[in-house]
Amino acid sequence: MKTDIEIAQAAQMKPIAEIAAELNIDADDLELYGKYKAKLSDTLWDKLKDKKDGKLVLVTAINPTPAGEGKTTTSVGLGQALCKMNKKAIVALREPSLGPCMGVKGGAAGGGYAQVVPMEDINLHFTGDIHAISAAHNLLSAMIDNHLQQGNELQIDPRQILWKRAVDMNDRALRNIIVGLGGKPHGMPREDGYMITVASEVMAILCLAEDLMDLKRRLGKIIIAYNFNGEPVTAEDLKANGAMAALLKDAIKPNLVQTLENTPVLMHGGPFANIAHGCNSIRATKMALKLADIVVTEAGFGADLGAEKFFDIKCRFAGLKPDAVVLVATIRALKYNGGIPKNELGTENLEALKKGFDNLKKHIENIKQYQVPIVVTLNEFVTDTDAEIAYVKEQCESMDCAFAISKVWEKGGQGGFELAQKVIETLETKSSRFEVLYDNNRTIVEKIETIARKIYGAKGVVFTSKAKKDMEKIAQMNLDKMPICIAKNQYSLSDDPSLLGRPTDFEITVRELRVSAGAGFIVALTGDVMIMPGLPKYPAAMNIDVNEKGQITGLF
Amino acid sequence: MKTDIEIAQAAQMKPIAEIAAELNIDADDLELYGKYKAKLSDTLWDKLKDKKDGKLVLVTAINPTPAGEGKTTTSVGLGQALCKMNKKAIVALREPSLGPCMGVKGGAAGGGYAQVVPMEDINLHFTGDIHAISAAHNLLSAMIDNHLQQGNELQIDPRQILWKRAVDMNDRALRNIIVGLGGKPHGMPREDGYMITVASEVMAILCLAEDLMDLKRRLGKIIIAYNFNGEPVTAEDLKANGAMAALLKDAIKPNLVQTLENTPVLMHGGPFANIAHGCNSIRATKMALKLADIVVTEAGFGADLGAEKFFDIKCRFAGLKPDAVVLVATIRALKYNGGIPKNELGTENLEALKKGFDNLKKHIENIKQYQVPIVVTLNEFVTDTDAEIAYVKEQCESMDCAFAISKVWEKGGQGGFELAQKVIETLETKSSRFEVLYDNNRTIVEKIETIARKIYGAKGVVFTSKAKKDMEKIAQMNLDKMPICIAKNQYSLSDDPSLLGRPTDFEITVRELRVSAGAGFIVALTGDVMIMPGLPKYPAAMNIDVNEKGQITGLF
Repeated sequence: MKTDIEIAQAAQMKPIAEIAAELNIDADDLELYGKYKAKLSDTLWDKLKDKKDGKLVLVTAINPTPAGEGKTTTSVGLGQALCKMNKKAIVALREPSLGPCMGVKGGAAGGGYAQVVPMEDINLHFTGDIHAISAAHNLLSAMIDNHLQQGNELQIDPRQILWKRAVDMNDRALRNIIVGLGGKPHGMPREDGYMITVASEVMAILCLAEDLMDLKRRLGKIIIAYNFNGEPVTAEDLKANGAMAALLKDAIKPNLVQTLENTPVLMHGGPFANIAHGCNSIRATKMALKLADIVVTEAGFGADLGAEKFFDIKCRFAGLKPDAVVLVATIRALKYNGGIPKNELGTENLEALKKGFDNLKKHIENIKQYQVPIVVTLNEFVTDTDAEIAYVKEQCESMDCAFAISKVWEKGGQGGFELAQKVIETLETKSSRFEVLYDNNRTIVEKIETIARKIYGAKGVVFTSKAKKDMEKIAQMNLDKMPICIAKNQYSLSDDPSLLGRPTDFEITVRELRVSAGAGFIVALTGDVMIMPGLPKYPAAMNIDVNEKGQITGLF
Repeated sequence: MKTDIEIAQAAQMKPIAEIAAELNIDADDLELYGKYKAKLSDTLWDKLKDKKDGKLVLVTAINPTPAGEGKTTTSVGLGQALCKMNKKAIVALREPSLGPCMGVKGGAAGGGYAQVVPMEDINLHFTGDIHAISAAHNLLSAMIDNHLQQGNELQIDPRQILWKRAVDMNDRALRNIIVGLGGKPHGMPREDGYMITVASEVMAILCLAEDLMDLKRRLGKIIIAYNFNGEPVTAEDLKANGAMAALLKDAIKPNLVQTLENTPVLMHGGPFANIAHGCNSIRATKMALKLADIVVTEAGFGADLGAEKFFDIKCRFAGLKPDAVVLVATIRALKYNGGIPKNELGTENLEALKKGFDNLKKHIENIKQYQVPIVVTLNEFVTDTDAEIAYVKEQCESMDCAFAISKVWEKGGQGGFELAQKVIETLETKSSRFEVLYDNNRTIVEKIETIARKIYGAKGVVFTSKAKKDMEKIAQMNLDKMPICIAKNQYSLSDDPSLLGRPTDFEITVRELRVSAGAGFIVALTGDVMIMPGLPKYPAAMNIDVNEKGQITGLF
């Protein structure tokens, strides 16, 4: 069997200018990065902005399991299928982070015969967006420490600096560091730490900004520290946001690439799905809606985190109205949610399936709260039995959800015809009456409780004393009327990763609140959130190699 | 008067594909990065490699002063002048680092009417080469700390880790840090520090590598630490060099841009001129020699550091034979070298000029040791008097050096006709019998003494006990037969920056030796070398801004 990278390298890519031309994009509105990647220039948006929007389809999933669901693969395959069926479709995805490629995770551009290409470029530097974000982020860091060093006019409290440094690498030794050692010429000693770049608020801002000026304004609002009086100090106070925006002037432009079957893909932005909202950029999604009749997009983690934030943060900010949701599951993952260990997932087990189906059911109920029509799709494995598939199909249809089997990993677009057909039917026959879950003007407690009760199925929310103190501070700063971004483990609907299926009778504990004032949301942390991954004992990097022709091997 | 960025933004750039076409480069051999930047693909080298080389002209200067000499400006202007005179010329330059742009230094793409464009892109992210180098560098760092964390099979001594981390930012607080704090899951605590990326050995390697396979081989040879037995541990021992090379597969390709007057420029690589050799990449220079009849290139700092390393490291490794040297000076800088303070440089002072001329004279003598013909050029200022210019001209001609006034800053290519004419005459009438200064097979002491005596004019070299110990270790590892890269202050021919003009009767003290086994040279440090700059009280970043059209202001 071919590996993902072998399949990707065998792809018959079209020059990206050709893909663009098929979307009626002039060569002048295209900024090429090699032959197969391009940025869409600002002039294009000016030309398109008054056009009618296409339909927006969100691909999301049940809670992730070690069995794998294939959300990105399904998104890519669905796009391929729609194009093969002569629909004008675009896939709008997040761009991958380099760090995890060197660890265990592998690439994030789909899999099998449903991949985005050029796979190596996309997984390594792509068009430099994440590097630009790192640079803008670390410029702000350098300006903070320089301000301390040069007299600290703003009276920044070195014990209350919130802005950590960032690097796009899995590097656990940088989680907790001390900087500024070596004596007077070398800075003010203080505790600091690094996060992986995709966790940076700059990434979240890039993805939520309307345009370059909105980006600059939002960057200026980032709270980098508190001063000795406990008042917030912002990036604007340091006069850093102009230069940061200058560093991001190209990164804010959406990237155009293609799938293995030459379906156009806008791949742009990739914020964390825990401390940030986990969706591709608003600009890319909006651009895609002007360019295509159907836009397939996705959100990070399961629907409890990904879809909720897509709806309540991204769609709210951008004024987007999703027209349908594709909810991805696998028989294996459902059985895993039903309590079956990983090595027994290949055996038929209707009892476990039934139990695990509760997880899918809850996600269906959740999406219905947003009043968006749903298509459930099973990403097929060879071990799935007819009885198992029949059970899921029947259950979904009884809940007024369309149902389709997807074989895109094995067969590409052709394997997605059934799914694409159901999506088209849903778009044609059912209408979305999308509305967000909560009003921004409610209190922070009310907003978090709404999400916890309605989406997670919790019976209540416990706020630690730290969280309560944070809440007061946020209200004091008049920053409480923003949407909530909950950082929670992705494996369970609850805040306990071991509670699979559909947990009941549980409480969510909010331990800390942080303000992402530039991004425009309040982060509620329900546990330790890892913002800097580590490498495993044998990092993937050890197997990555390149030959004299520049061909990369070992990237997966 | 217009600022550099205003002049640059008013430039009538040609699409880079057009510039390439004028060099007979097929569109297929070009990897575009937007409309005005491109990388030259490996296939181009295969097509060109058997062509005859053009002539190679090195632009170097007297020791730098606060008065400014304008080496890059002269290189760019000379290229423009040659093209205006219908010569087929290319300028081959280093690419600038982002960090210093945010501090005080400003851009590094020439000045006035002799600039490389698009100036903002070049000074910010350009084609991502330096970001790729940071990523490759920091992957190795992460793999080192991960190795310590996962059992330390190679028995790396955490007290003897030589490989610091790197970021392309001026950030003094990162010079001396402690990493790995926070307990067992978060790494092994140890001292560490950051350097600016251009100081990374990865940058030096990229610039000296023949091709991608040579790059990978050299990366593997980097000594990252010593083990508990005192033996070297390399990047190859960690199996890091394959992935590092994969990250650099595009960065190794030369970048094509243009000057304000559409002269082609290959801008590629930019290693430090103290702990590294300070020249653009061998690949770019070699490619330029195949594409043009005259290639104008430059080297960092004054001729004592820049030209010496260009000859003894770059030309030695690449088998290049420079055909002429342009030695840049200004009347102001010569008077400064003659002991006149900065605010009095505008007044005629033949005594000071005569005294300061000794600095220029020594550099002329030095270059003659390499047997390469010389053209001296004065970068003209309005305050220069006829008597002053006449003195310099007469002295240079008496030493068999051609002489020309350059007005390229003010007038672009047209201001460089006199210089270009002298360069052409020199290339046509004088022949280079270039040879390197010393034999690699001599001892380290002999090699350093040769440079110090012959180039700096020192009466001898003192080696500290640390340096002697380092030397023994290097010989023990059989790494002593490599060229020497001296890290010395750039302001004086001696190792004391306050000794201007032509110091005599001084000794050079070598305090430490380091091995850049991947790059292939031995670094001899004569003082503290700053590998991580800091920001000033009011960083340039505070003035950098971008408007809604993406136009950048405040970058200079």
